[in-house]
Amino acid sequence: MLSGPFLDRNWMGQNKDYNSADIVMLGLPFDGTVSYRPGSRFAPEQIRLASWGLEDYSPVFDKHLQDVNFHDAGDLEFPAGNTCGSLELTEKNVEQIYRSGKRVFGIGGEHLVTLPEIKAAAKFHKDLAVVHFDAHADLREEYLGEKMSHAAVIRHISKIVKPENIKQIGIRSGLKEEFKFMEKHGMLISEFSGLDALRGKKIFVTVDLDVLDPSVMPGTGTPEAGGFDFNTLVDWFVYLKDFDIIGCDVVELAPDYDASGVSTAAAAKVIRELLMVM
Amino acid sequence: MLSGPFLDRNWMGQNKDYNSADIVMLGLPFDGTVSYRPGSRFAPEQIRLASWGLEDYSPVFDKHLQDVNFHDAGDLEFPAGNTCGSLELTEKNVEQIYRSGKRVFGIGGEHLVTLPEIKAAAKFHKDLAVVHFDAHADLREEYLGEKMSHAAVIRHISKIVKPENIKQIGIRSGLKEEFKFMEKHGMLISEFSGLDALRGKKIFVTVDLDVLDPSVMPGTGTPEAGGFDFNTLVDWFVYLKDFDIIGCDVVELAPDYDASGVSTAAAAKVIRELLMVM
Amino acid sequence: MLSGPFLDRNWMGQNKDYNSADIVMLGLPFDGTVSYRPGSRFAPEQIRLASWGLEDYSPVFDKHLQDVNFHDAGDLEFPAGNTCGSLELTEKNVEQIYRSGKRVFGIGGEHLVTLPEIKAAAKFHKDLAVVHFDAHADLREEYLGEKMSHAAVIRHISKIVKPENIKQIGIRSGLKEEFKFMEKHGMLISEFSGLDALRGKKIFVTVDLDVLDPSVMPGTGTPEAGGFDFNTLVDWFVYLKDFDIIGCDVVELAPDYDASGVSTAAAAKVIRELLMVM
Amino acid sequence: MLSGPFLDRNWMGQNKDYNSADIVMLGLPFDGTVSYRPGSRFAPEQIRLASWGLEDYSPVFDKHLQDVNFHDAGDLEFPAGNTCGSLELTEKNVEQIYRSGKRVFGIGGEHLVTLPEIKAAAKFHKDLAVVHFDAHADLREEYLGEKMSHAAVIRHISKIVKPENIKQIGIRSGLKEEFKFMEKHGMLISEFSGLDALRGKKIFVTVDLDVLDPSVMPGTGTPEAGGFDFNTLVDWFVYLKDFDIIGCDVVELAPDYDASGVSTAAAAKVIRELLMVM
Amino acid sequence: MLSGPFLDRNWMGQNKDYNSADIVMLGLPFDGTVSYRPGSRFAPEQIRLASWGLEDYSPVFDKHLQDVNFHDAGDLEFPAGNTCGSLELTEKNVEQIYRSGKRVFGIGGEHLVTLPEIKAAAKFHKDLAVVHFDAHADLREEYLGEKMSHAAVIRHISKIVKPENIKQIGIRSGLKEEFKFMEKHGMLISEFSGLDALRGKKIFVTVDLDVLDPSVMPGTGTPEAGGFDFNTLVDWFVYLKDFDIIGCDVVELAPDYDASGVSTAAAAKVIRELLMVM
Amino acid sequence: MLSGPFLDRNWMGQNKDYNSADIVMLGLPFDGTVSYRPGSRFAPEQIRLASWGLEDYSPVFDKHLQDVNFHDAGDLEFPAGNTCGSLELTEKNVEQIYRSGKRVFGIGGEHLVTLPEIKAAAKFHKDLAVVHFDAHADLREEYLGEKMSHAAVIRHISKIVKPENIKQIGIRSGLKEEFKFMEKHGMLISEFSGLDALRGKKIFVTVDLDVLDPSVMPGTGTPEAGGFDFNTLVDWFVYLKDFDIIGCDVVELAPDYDASGVSTAAAAKVIRELLMVM
Repeated sequence: MLSGPFLDRNWMGQNKDYNSADIVMLGLPFDGTVSYRPGSRFAPEQIRLASWGLEDYSPVFDKHLQDVNFHDAGDLEFPAGNTCGSLELTEKNVEQIYRSGKRVFGIGGEHLVTLPEIKAAAKFHKDLAVVHFDAHADLREEYLGEKMSHAAVIRHISKIVKPENIKQIGIRSGLKEEFKFMEKHGMLISEFSGLDALRGKKIFVTVDLDVLDPSVMPGTGTPEAGGFDFNTLVDWFVYLKDFDIIGCDVVELAPDYDASGVSTAAAAKVIRELLMVM
Repeated sequence: MLSGPFLDRNWMGQNKDYNSADIVMLGLPFDGTVSYRPGSRFAPEQIRLASWGLEDYSPVFDKHLQDVNFHDAGDLEFPAGNTCGSLELTEKNVEQIYRSGKRVFGIGGEHLVTLPEIKAAAKFHKDLAVVHFDAHADLREEYLGEKMSHAAVIRHISKIVKPENIKQIGIRSGLKEEFKFMEKHGMLISEFSGLDALRGKKIFVTVDLDVLDPSVMPGTGTPEAGGFDFNTLVDWFVYLKDFDIIGCDVVELAPDYDASGVSTAAAAKVIRELLMVM
Repeated sequence: MLSGPFLDRNWMGQNKDYNSADIVMLGLPFDGTVSYRPGSRFAPEQIRLASWGLEDYSPVFDKHLQDVNFHDAGDLEFPAGNTCGSLELTEKNVEQIYRSGKRVFGIGGEHLVTLPEIKAAAKFHKDLAVVHFDAHADLREEYLGEKMSHAAVIRHISKIVKPENIKQIGIRSGLKEEFKFMEKHGMLISEFSGLDALRGKKIFVTVDLDVLDPSVMPGTGTPEAGGFDFNTLVDWFVYLKDFDIIGCDVVELAPDYDASGVSTAAAAKVIRELLMVM
Repeated sequence: MLSGPFLDRNWMGQNKDYNSADIVMLGLPFDGTVSYRPGSRFAPEQIRLASWGLEDYSPVFDKHLQDVNFHDAGDLEFPAGNTCGSLELTEKNVEQIYRSGKRVFGIGGEHLVTLPEIKAAAKFHKDLAVVHFDAHADLREEYLGEKMSHAAVIRHISKIVKPENIKQIGIRSGLKEEFKFMEKHGMLISEFSGLDALRGKKIFVTVDLDVLDPSVMPGTGTPEAGGFDFNTLVDWFVYLKDFDIIGCDVVELAPDYDASGVSTAAAAKVIRELLMVM
Repeated sequence: MLSGPFLDRNWMGQNKDYNSADIVMLGLPFDGTVSYRPGSRFAPEQIRLASWGLEDYSPVFDKHLQDVNFHDAGDLEFPAGNTCGSLELTEKNVEQIYRSGKRVFGIGGEHLVTLPEIKAAAKFHKDLAVVHFDAHADLREEYLGEKMSHAAVIRHISKIVKPENIKQIGIRSGLKEEFKFMEKHGMLISEFSGLDALRGKKIFVTVDLDVLDPSVMPGTGTPEAGGFDFNTLVDWFVYLKDFDIIGCDVVELAPDYDASGVSTAAAAKVIRELLMVM
Repeated sequence: MLSGPFLDRNWMGQNKDYNSADIVMLGLPFDGTVSYRPGSRFAPEQIRLASWGLEDYSPVFDKHLQDVNFHDAGDLEFPAGNTCGSLELTEKNVEQIYRSGKRVFGIGGEHLVTLPEIKAAAKFHKDLAVVHFDAHADLREEYLGEKMSHAAVIRHISKIVKPENIKQIGIRSGLKEEFKFMEKHGMLISEFSGLDALRGKKIFVTVDLDVLDPSVMPGTGTPEAGGFDFNTLVDWFVYLKDFDIIGCDVVELAPDYDASGVSTAAAAKVIRELLMVM
């Protein structure tokens, strides 16, 4: 064998050993139902590379990535053009993670991947709640006639986790009916205290990166002006520190629309900070 | 004929019928006097395409684009390299819109197109006022010896609409003399209440997109750091809701400097929100 | 109504009237099965805009676009994420074109759209043959388990048009089995005379733009080095002038990978020259 | 004063002294009449910077740039938006160059700048001929009603230098009338020997960079597929070595469409090789 | 000689005469130790060109650039790949500036160039203090085994200027040890009043442009999300107006990662405003 | 453990087992001495990702990558900013490869990495010869005073392998002295037969990707117009098939200058074809 040393090609700061890790990071390079600009399938690998441009220490959380004890399991290989098969594969692997007593950290791919993650989590955690960062409500019943769409993912999830246990943050785009649905169920919150209703529950945090303003995150499929700056998002994470988080994902980076690389770098930092919260 | 269905290639949510529409959207693809980075001639068509990436519902105004009742008339065809002829053509068409009792919504092109719009509007509305969003004062007497320049457009307009009836918002660049001129006439305002002097008047709102920070709007000819974020601009629009707006335009997007597409998407959303105000 | 004049937003040189046209140009913005870099759904509209950067006169064919007598029918609106429905819609509309005694000119979208075009053409032309320009053989039985894939389109077509009546030009990538299949059926040709076997037949010409070298056509989903330069492709078109062409398509431009705009401009010129051949 | 050393910010290999130089390089950053994609005004400075990425030795001509004895005079400052004034300023300065017994090397800017260069040259050289490399014939009488257009520049010149003394190389786009005009006067040549008719005359060589294929030169205003590769252009230069060249220009680089920088680097090398010919 | 006029190719608003100038602007195109994305060597020239897109009047400081009386001395020519030699050359030239009683304004290049500037300044100003704007602490003892690194520049400086006289603003990335070092010495400040301890001292202000958020400044080597917006930075400059500033530099623009040009334009404006402070 | 399946993140078609492999592919992400546009350090990983966009079958060589039996060992981790240490690390690892009886395939990084590869190879192969594809002669004694430079790499190698045993192909840029040196030693060849002198020797093939024309390979540090098209390079590879090749490398891709991705895709294909030759 060669003496090297070789560059580590996995996520910075990971625990190389699956078995002893508390959290398993799983790449989910699927973008089959994207309505506008596709390409989030390339995100997990490009974020992994960009992670090495960060420090492993977070001054906000005064913690190192090594303290988080997560394992980078790599990216699932999906059957191309097969939405159903891709979702099932995701569900099966996430189930295995929960069965072994670990927590999951998914890296999309498009937002629809959150559905099988939640399905798997719900089998192990009865009192599940969801915290949803996004520009879009994702509460449609269908999108152009298709039920399985990233624009409908939270609506699907609301049949597994009751709407009152889903809190949405940053939503600024949707149909009028989606806003009415949110209002009816008290889903949309704009202050930290809106999260307090979920204390004591098992929480899955799903971050659609387009919750950030397109100036911060140009590399995404459906950029929607008027979003959060980076620190606002991190402030929410800081508040979540005391909650019982059993899973997270970060989705919808589209690296091909990120000529300057700043979106990918920001996505990597979102993930680092969110790992610190778990 | 073919049964289709075919993609609608006009602005999302328009009324297809000119006659029954209240507002006429008119593309003005002219950039003949641009001093620095040209290309705003390509804006009206690219914004039109990007409009389909938005929802037709605005949660800020709780209204659909269909409620606005506007008609997308297409883009004027200008005589290339002929500034005079282009301005006259604009004036003539805008006059026709006002003569039929409708209101105008111009899509530039460069800022000089606002001059013929105002000329036409002034023939029908004696008590005209102007609300001007911009990074640049545009109050020069001339630019490098040329009187007809986008850097002089508001100075020209100040001979039609008296300076006291022009309110400028977001200006952060100009000659010392331009800032003195603004000061002398009380033109530059930084609080909503600065608009109250215009209540009861007929208002034309002109938005140079570089009023937004270059992070939000990189695709413009003369990016000037230190501008508004998107929501600040929309807050001004919300305040304008009670005013009597008889015309608007949105100018100076340069799509060729917008590699990521976020500027064009933001321009489309500025237009959607401003339509809601009318 | 407004006096304008307005910019023509259809293909340069078209006949505005469907009924009197000989050829119908049909935009097919579908890219649902793309394996690598998606985005050809944006091609028909961007090519249309770029057509105005060309002259309507071709010195190679000494002819004007107006002489071709084609009508730009616009772009079909497909059900998002529904491959089957999209292909059926294409087939239905192309059938209508052939039923009215006209010929079709499809603008992709991905290569799979050629399948329903051929299906429709085969209903009206018994002695159908296909001329296929491409970097890739597209002769797979399936791709990652999916039968309906742009990598399998010619294999599907070979069940409608017998392989001996399909001539492939420019192929430089494929599985070993695909090259064997081509060899067995004498499909791959490299000299003009290879086309002579098709004389007297009704010919459908399908051009996957990646037959051009990636230097000429960077904006495509699966760039494959070692392709044709532009004039080589046109030389083939010149040879095809005497053949009986009843349909054409040009597919696989991905404008989002075409920062400089040269791919889109070249695609428009490919279409102009191919229209001249019909 | 500071001891430095400082980077030389002029063209690599120039003679710093105007008086002792044989050739004067003059930047002409004008793009006021451009019909499609503007921005050639930025070319002279960006080419100057890119010249330092080349060697000063040309293996093709076995000569150093220093042997050419040229002086980089800088870029003229034009009155913005004033076509007439810009052309007059160019003519006046080029006249001064010829009056002092030197030869001119213009760097555009758009192609219209060649007209005042030729006007000035014609005052000093009665037996003037022109060698014109371009994709476009540039022989229109007018363009969209304007006589002063880069699409008409050679037609204007044909009133100063008789058409028979203009030889055009690489033309692949134009109106039918332009091709007829070229044919009538024997202007379009495709073999080196076509130049022999100009032996003994004083020759001005004008190179519109879009004579190169868009793959080689994406950064230009009106990319036209099917052009020369770089070495083909240089072969023509080699043939021109024995002719009596009294002026040259290289025009129509648009650096803002040259994301990778290869167009600007190629433009600098075209200039280096053409300087070697003089 | 030619009558011109010629474009001024130096910084807008400079005093052409070195001797009568109060401040000397010195380009330092060095990026030899950059760990991630290199290219800041191209910054001084591209910023110089972009300066002409600004006005010479600053409304914030109500002053013209001409009032500042600075001379643009050009860019040093460094021995490629020789870190030591480059730093010595910088130190020598900056010394000459201070010896002649002037102040220095350095344009990087990477951040390591600040070290020789400080070394030179310290020879003339005993009571030296440093104000450091940056995303990164730059307080490492070494970086991957190398002592001379831009990630260690402030640590090196802390051996010349005692840590208590260094105030750091905007730092959001570093090793835990770096944050402890800052804490121990009271270096990191977040309010204007934190600067008051430096009143009466001679101050060198060093601005690493990545202190700005990557949305504002994508064109930099190590983009770090969560930074300042432009106006926040200028507010700090306004507070610094009453301090005794004897030198400044602005470093780490990487123009090749700035496709839209907004980073370079923002860098030029940062420099204009900081010049106003001196 | 998870059942996956997971995406393979190594080079397509590799043998996972180092011991049983015949050829070892070694990433060498070093670009410390680059004179113009840096960034080749990012090449090995981006090429690896792009390899999956190719087929594993080469129709030119009628062979699969699996038949080549190569192992992807990953990328060495170099001490940043330490040229000497990086070269030594390369030499040591390449030596280990040769000691175990295998052959090496290096992926740069800049061209200087070839020097330690040759040093290592020379210890095991007395009768070593070099085939060098490049735009630049790389025969300088030094570059701006530095001996260790990618512009001097072949000169250094000529002290290990005598110049007569080095054959250079595609060179079109250099100092006059470099061209004289090549001429004196018969190094520069332009026909296949020029290689015949090396028959029977152990050959190391080094490919600087800028031997390809910048239209084919824009993503490189020093683009030099007038290069090979892709098929010309592959034709040379075909001729090399009968030679005894004991090592190869492919260097100087700079992915950050490859917005469209075509350079990286072409680099991956160059490597696939060159692997077929070994």
